[in-house]
Amino acid sequence: MTQSSPGRFTLHRTVGAARRGTLSLAHGDIDTPAFMPVGTAASVKGLTPRDLHEIGIRILLANTYHLWLRPGRATLEALGGLHAFMAWDRNILTDSGGFQVFSLEARRELSDEGVRFRSHLDGSEHVFTPENVVAFQEALGVDVAMALDVCVKLPAQPSEVDEAVRRTTLWARRCAAARSRAQTALFGIVQGGLDRRARERSARELVALDLPGYAIGGLSVGESREDLYALSRFTAALLPQDRPRYLMGVGTVRDLIAAVDGGVDMFDCVYPTRCGRNGRALTRSGDLNIANAAFTRDARPLDETCACAVCATHTRAYLAHLFRAREMLGPRLLSYHNLAMLAALMRDVRDAIAAGTWVAFRDAEVARTTSIG
Amino acid sequence: MTQSSPGRFTLHRTVGAARRGTLSLAHGDIDTPAFMPVGTAASVKGLTPRDLHEIGIRILLANTYHLWLRPGRATLEALGGLHAFMAWDRNILTDSGGFQVFSLEARRELSDEGVRFRSHLDGSEHVFTPENVVAFQEALGVDVAMALDVCVKLPAQPSEVDEAVRRTTLWARRCAAARSRAQTALFGIVQGGLDRRARERSARELVALDLPGYAIGGLSVGESREDLYALSRFTAALLPQDRPRYLMGVGTVRDLIAAVDGGVDMFDCVYPTRCGRNGRALTRSGDLNIANAAFTRDARPLDETCACAVCATHTRAYLAHLFRAREMLGPRLLSYHNLAMLAALMRDVRDAIAAGTWVAFRDAEVARTTSIG
Repeated sequence: MTQSSPGRFTLHRTVGAARRGTLSLAHGDIDTPAFMPVGTAASVKGLTPRDLHEIGIRILLANTYHLWLRPGRATLEALGGLHAFMAWDRNILTDSGGFQVFSLEARRELSDEGVRFRSHLDGSEHVFTPENVVAFQEALGVDVAMALDVCVKLPAQPSEVDEAVRRTTLWARRCAAARSRAQTALFGIVQGGLDRRARERSARELVALDLPGYAIGGLSVGESREDLYALSRFTAALLPQDRPRYLMGVGTVRDLIAAVDGGVDMFDCVYPTRCGRNGRALTRSGDLNIANAAFTRDARPLDETCACAVCATHTRAYLAHLFRAREMLGPRLLSYHNLAMLAALMRDVRDAIAAGTWVAFRDAEVARTTSIG
Repeated sequence: MTQSSPGRFTLHRTVGAARRGTLSLAHGDIDTPAFMPVGTAASVKGLTPRDLHEIGIRILLANTYHLWLRPGRATLEALGGLHAFMAWDRNILTDSGGFQVFSLEARRELSDEGVRFRSHLDGSEHVFTPENVVAFQEALGVDVAMALDVCVKLPAQPSEVDEAVRRTTLWARRCAAARSRAQTALFGIVQGGLDRRARERSARELVALDLPGYAIGGLSVGESREDLYALSRFTAALLPQDRPRYLMGVGTVRDLIAAVDGGVDMFDCVYPTRCGRNGRALTRSGDLNIANAAFTRDARPLDETCACAVCATHTRAYLAHLFRAREMLGPRLLSYHNLAMLAALMRDVRDAIAAGTWVAFRDAEVARTTSIG
């Protein structure tokens, strides 16, 4: 695959390692750095495509593992693919299922061929191979497909890490060879745990495949914040300047700022929507537990610096009431705000890099969140 | 209170007993017959004020009992009243709490003074009197307040029915005397169970108070459909032509059509939103259980005659998937559709009465729903 669109990445400016770019995909351009909301089962929990449009989302993530099991490929194809199925006309990235299968632990069995696993829904047996995972994602018509990878549980023995890297490369090669749809850009996933030499080897082997993008996998799985920051920065530096870099599973304000500073372009995380369901409001100066008694008569919006529809309309007092009364509108509104807050943060991040003011912006954001959050 | 606005009702046309009118309230005019969505705890479950605007809702119902307990009068007043609290700029009708307290059964004690009850939330003791229930609703700034009433459980002894009617009249008089806010229109509630003489007495005594509107209470509590239709029609005919008539707790297509035909102008019911949460889609030709296997690959909208945002955007297959995957977007979308469907029904009802084609319209709607629903 050549670097023509879709999948073309244009780098506009860098400040240190931080990058301001544009990723061109089949369903439109994405300004980077960008945060991708997670729509596991073809739905960003509680929100409509229109909500996501309003928030300014240009790409969301869905999960191969979940969609494979339900509603399944035949249904998704019958309904015209994943975009049509979920009525989302912008970009979709699907993960490869590798991470979910990794989470199944006792229910899966790995070999060089692929991974055999049992559904968490009904115990039925399934096999993921590099080839069928690519075929599935292409059949869904997604804009970015992820290669099948092996994620190791930390802490890991060096031999386990090496084996995971070996298999991840083997599978990425087979994924690349299995491609048949130009509008779906295949990203490889760098593994290697906390071992820098393993990360170097993984990155080198994947970069040799000349893929349109690379993810940093195997982090945000329980390691320390220091390890996350150091390893994501280290890994990003191993990847080509002219390809987008996607750090999987990162989504707090502080982690996003640190990873952008380390040279990452794309992120996904369930954090903002999961927090939204649990009454945790993200703000630029830290998180709020909205059910806290302090907010019962607080007439301010969730975040006074936020321009989202929820902050323009509703008070903390009302949102506190919705959560206390277990009204389903509460999770919906807080999920919307949390995603809008992160989208606004990423816009400011992009503006700061573009303006060359990234370092001051970064330090101010970090100071704000660490003082309260 | 005179019949000047707010609370003025204008009757435009009648076809038999069916009426096309306009009720002018402090937050705007309501075209009748109208269906009012229920926002028990200051939230129509899962939907925003903007959703309700889109659907064309001009008035919603909230519950005195629930708001009294949580968030309570002091909080609601501190936040600027119920409209400001829930960010709803059209009309609000609050029930009196009589019906909820009636449902508490073992937790309440009635006397002529009022009703003493224990909160279902924390067991705390409270007293509703005609005076404090009116004061509460006026403090919230609602557009229509309901008088405190006594609803009897069916079947009931004649003596119980008589006693309920006596107390309902006594309390309505005290409610009327307690009024202090012109922008809040007080409606009385006719009781009398299934006893026509008791209904006549209740209506006569309440009409003597010259209230701006009257509700038909004590129905939709488990009686047969025949009794519901006959008694609502019978009671409506006892009420003044120039005042709106509100049948409490009715919200299926068939019941709405029958009650409009009997001369009712306003309705409320949790049915459309409760169905929405449970995967039951209302359509003009009957209800669908969306989780049914038949819809898994059905690319049609919920109702092909529906112009709502959900039907314009999403397939039955996608909605079926959301419910099967227990995605919270499912209840939201189905609640939206169900309310939009009823709002469209009521628009068509109003148009048919205005055009003089009510009888044909009514018969066609009843034939459609009874053949499938």
